[in-house]
Amino acid sequence: MTTRIAVPLPKAYLLLNHGPTVLVSSAYGGRRNVMAAAWNMALDFDPPKVAVVIDKATLTRELVEASGEFVLNVPARQQAALALAVGTQSGRKVDKFGKKVGAGGTAASAVGAPLIEGCLAWLECRVIAEPHIQKTYDLFLAEVVAAWAEPEAFSNGRWHFPDQQRRSIHYQAGGNFFATGEAFEA
Amino acid sequence: MTTRIAVPLPKAYLLLNHGPTVLVSSAYGGRRNVMAAAWNMALDFDPPKVAVVIDKATLTRELVEASGEFVLNVPARQQAALALAVGTQSGRKVDKFGKKVGAGGTAASAVGAPLIEGCLAWLECRVIAEPHIQKTYDLFLAEVVAAWAEPEAFSNGRWHFPDQQRRSIHYQAGGNFFATGEAFEA
Repeated sequence: MTTRIAVPLPKAYLLLNHGPTVLVSSAYGGRRNVMAAAWNMALDFDPPKVAVVIDKATLTRELVEASGEFVLNVPARQQAALALAVGTQSGRKVDKFGKKVGAGGTAASAVGAPLIEGCLAWLECRVIAEPHIQKTYDLFLAEVVAAWAEPEAFSNGRWHFPDQQRRSIHYQAGGNFFATGEAFEA
Repeated sequence: MTTRIAVPLPKAYLLLNHGPTVLVSSAYGGRRNVMAAAWNMALDFDPPKVAVVIDKATLTRELVEASGEFVLNVPARQQAALALAVGTQSGRKVDKFGKKVGAGGTAASAVGAPLIEGCLAWLECRVIAEPHIQKTYDLFLAEVVAAWAEPEAFSNGRWHFPDQQRRSIHYQAGGNFFATGEAFEA
């Protein structure tokens, strides 16, 4: 498993503040899955909350609704092909942890959903039940109950990507991404 | 005013898909304001919807609740100091369109909130009334009713930033941003 250090919960929003595309991992009843989600954001500082869109058609939706839990994993550029694969193939048809897709998962600390190996950060989340917006907008709100980062990429509340392949990514469309670019001070 | 071309509504989500920090502009009863929001995301394709967090303490919140409208403006790197200024100063204390902050605003097509000059894209939005989540989470959902882009930065459904200063930006913390980085195909 990738090295990871705990991120203090009041700093967890910083893992998503710059708008990276994430992988949503989930598990329930012996099944597990992972999908990509560009439509995610921080929702509160402390206790930290997040919002993410999870389409009705997905296996992830079924596992998240059954378990009330998920992990938001922040993938690295070197995982872009994996992000695209898990974002375009359905967990109903292929085991994304099998050889064909090849996602690696390891146990989280507070939720049943796995942490995806090789990512830069992980936010373990418990769903805040809001059935009306879940049903109407596919919109899920959750509290972050544990957070982790790869210390070469994020520490002391700041991202400091160590190289071009270990930068976060931002999905555009049609298999095209942007890497997180140059840091600068306004 | 910056040159702009209409973005077809089913392509409007692409303006936010990569997670840029936006400026939220608003107007009501002869007052107008603009604030920064890293916590925004697309919520649906067609009709396009968005989600954004607008804190209770802000003048923007008052103007958005009164008018039921706002614009999400996607600022360029060359506007990072403006984004920081409108994100840290309250519209209750300073006119952000005055000399001190210097935001430029021009008329939108379908809403009363202004389009901020110099930005790369603009999404004119009408609030979808969801009082419970507005009150509980400061979370606003809205339908995009018109969208525009600076054609040198976005056209035919794709971002193609023309130079380093006209790239979108992603707020980190403490006055630090990331520019949107290198485009690549997975």
